[in-house]
Amino acid sequence: MREFALIDRLAARLASRRPDTRIGIGDDAALIAPPAGEELAITTDTLIAGRHFPHDTPARDVGYKAIAVNLSDLAAMGATPAWITIALAAPALEAQWCDAFVDGAFDAIGASAVDIVGGDTTRGDLSITITAIGHLPVGTALRRSAAQAGDLIAVTGTLGDAAHGLRRWPMRARATADERYCISRLARPQWRDGAALRGIAHAAIDVSDGLLADLGHVLAASACGARVDVDALPASAALRRCTAREPRRKYQLTGGDDYELCITLAPEALDRARAALDCPLTVIGEIEMETGLRLFDAHGASVRAFGPGGWDHFHGY
Amino acid sequence: MREFALIDRLAARLASRRPDTRIGIGDDAALIAPPAGEELAITTDTLIAGRHFPHDTPARDVGYKAIAVNLSDLAAMGATPAWITIALAAPALEAQWCDAFVDGAFDAIGASAVDIVGGDTTRGDLSITITAIGHLPVGTALRRSAAQAGDLIAVTGTLGDAAHGLRRWPMRARATADERYCISRLARPQWRDGAALRGIAHAAIDVSDGLLADLGHVLAASACGARVDVDALPASAALRRCTAREPRRKYQLTGGDDYELCITLAPEALDRARAALDCPLTVIGEIEMETGLRLFDAHGASVRAFGPGGWDHFHGY
Repeated sequence: MREFALIDRLAARLASRRPDTRIGIGDDAALIAPPAGEELAITTDTLIAGRHFPHDTPARDVGYKAIAVNLSDLAAMGATPAWITIALAAPALEAQWCDAFVDGAFDAIGASAVDIVGGDTTRGDLSITITAIGHLPVGTALRRSAAQAGDLIAVTGTLGDAAHGLRRWPMRARATADERYCISRLARPQWRDGAALRGIAHAAIDVSDGLLADLGHVLAASACGARVDVDALPASAALRRCTAREPRRKYQLTGGDDYELCITLAPEALDRARAALDCPLTVIGEIEMETGLRLFDAHGASVRAFGPGGWDHFHGY
Repeated sequence: MREFALIDRLAARLASRRPDTRIGIGDDAALIAPPAGEELAITTDTLIAGRHFPHDTPARDVGYKAIAVNLSDLAAMGATPAWITIALAAPALEAQWCDAFVDGAFDAIGASAVDIVGGDTTRGDLSITITAIGHLPVGTALRRSAAQAGDLIAVTGTLGDAAHGLRRWPMRARATADERYCISRLARPQWRDGAALRGIAHAAIDVSDGLLADLGHVLAASACGARVDVDALPASAALRRCTAREPRRKYQLTGGDDYELCITLAPEALDRARAALDCPLTVIGEIEMETGLRLFDAHGASVRAFGPGGWDHFHGY
C-alpha cells in the first residue's frame, strides 16, 4: 500500500459532517471556519506500540484508542470536539490493518460531528500522533488552575478497571467475564462529555496517568491541596469481584488509562453536574487551602504510601 | 530527562508572542482565539529519522526542518502561520539534544508571530510530528484545484539543490563550498511567504516530493495539463557549477525537499507576484487544457523520461 493510500482511504470513507470544514484531506492543508466568537482547544497525543498499548493490540482497538485519548483531553477542557488530524507510522501499511484501524477511529467518533481533516502516513515502528481541535464559548474552559478551597472533588464513572485490565492482558485468552470487562475498559476507554460541565465545574482533568498524578496536576496549577477518601473511590462491580482491597486501591489511585474526568466544583453545583452527565459522578474528597494531597479511609485514618510508582512519588507538592 | 521535561523546557523558553493564545503548554489542551472572520489552515507532517532526514543529522537541524516543512505547507495554502504543536519521540530525551532541537525550532520560527502551544514527548525511535495552524481571510486559500488553462507556471528560488545535497551528505566532511551550499539547502530549507500571494496566484503547492510529483498533484486536482520548459528550471550557481546537465535536470524535476513554491497565475499577475515576494520567481511553463505533463527543452524538443523515480512514474494521468 502506498504511503498516501491510507489517507486516500480515509478521505473516501469519511465524508465531511461539518459545514464549517471548507477543505478536508487532499490539499496542502485542511481549511476550517471556526465558530464565530468561540475559542479553540488544541491537543496532541502520541501513542506508541509497546508503550501506550500492548504490541498485540488489534488494529481496530488501536484506532479507537488513539482517537479516544485525544477526545478525552478536549473533554477535560470542556471543549466540543470538531476536527482531527492523524499521523500514522506503521511497519507495513497493509490494507486490512488500515481498514480495521479506520473502523476503530470511526467507532470512537461515533455519531459526533467530528471530521478527520488531514494526516500523514509513513513506514516506521507503529506509532500514532493525533491532533484534535474542539471549540467552546469564550471564557468557559475548564482549566487545571481553577480549583478553589472548599470545592468538592468528584470523578466520573469508575477507576482502576484499565490498570487491572492491563495486568490481565497477557492472560486474556482465559480471562473471566469480570476480567474481560476490565480489559475492554483498557482497550476501549470511554471518555466523558466534559462540554456538559462548562459553567458548572471549576477545574477538570482526565485521568490518564492515574488519579494521584492527575489530581496532583490540578493542585499544583491551582496552588492548593486536597483530602481524598480512598474508600469513596468508585470501583466497578467487576473490579470489586476480581481484586482484593489493597491492589484495587493501588489501581484506583495510580493506574492510568481510565480516561474518566476528575473535576472540582462548588458543593451547590453537584446536583447540576450530575444532571448534566450521562454517567455516575462520585464525590471523593475536597479541595483545601493547605497544599499537599492527604489520603484517608472511610474511618478517617490516614492512608500510607504503598511503594514504587504509588503515592510516595507524588508526595511533597 | 523525564517525558514531560522537554515540553516544560519549551514552555519555559518560549513565552507567547500572540495575544490570541489564551493558554499555551500546561493544561489538557491549548486554547486559542482565532482571528474573527478568518479561516484556519491545519497541516500535519511527520519526519522520521533515516527516512525524512539522515540519522546523523544534528539535533538543531532536525528541529529546524520539522518546523520548516510544516510552515511550508501553510505557505502553500497562502496561510499566515500562528500556532504549532510538537510531538517528539526520541530514544533518549537528553537535555543537550533537546536544547539543540528547540534551538533549531526557534531558528525556523525566527521573528514570526508563531506560538508553540502544545506537544507530547515519548521515548521511541526518533520521529517528530508537527501540526501547524495558520489563518487567512475567507476565500483566499491557494488551492491545488485552482489552476486554469492559460496560467503561467512559476517556481520560487531554485530547484535541485537539496537533492544534490542529499547525495553529497555522506561525504560532507570533504565537501566543496558549492556542495556545502546544496547540503545546507537540504538541512535548512527556506520556505517562502505564500501568504503574500493571496489574491495573486491561482493554485499553489510546495515542492516537497519533487516538481513533477507536486505539479502533478495540481494538474490532477485542477483537471488540466501543462507544458514545462526544463531548461527554464531555476538552478543555483552552486548547483550549476557542481553538476552536469542530465543529473541536474533529474534533481530539479524529481528531487524533493526544496520547499520552494510552485504556483500558477494569470500572465498579467506575474509582476505583482514578483513584487510581493522577496525571492526570485521564474516562469517554467504553462497550464493547458489537455491533461498530461509535457516536457520540452529550450529548443522546443520533447524531453524523454530518464529512469526510475523520474518522469516515467508520473506519465499518464
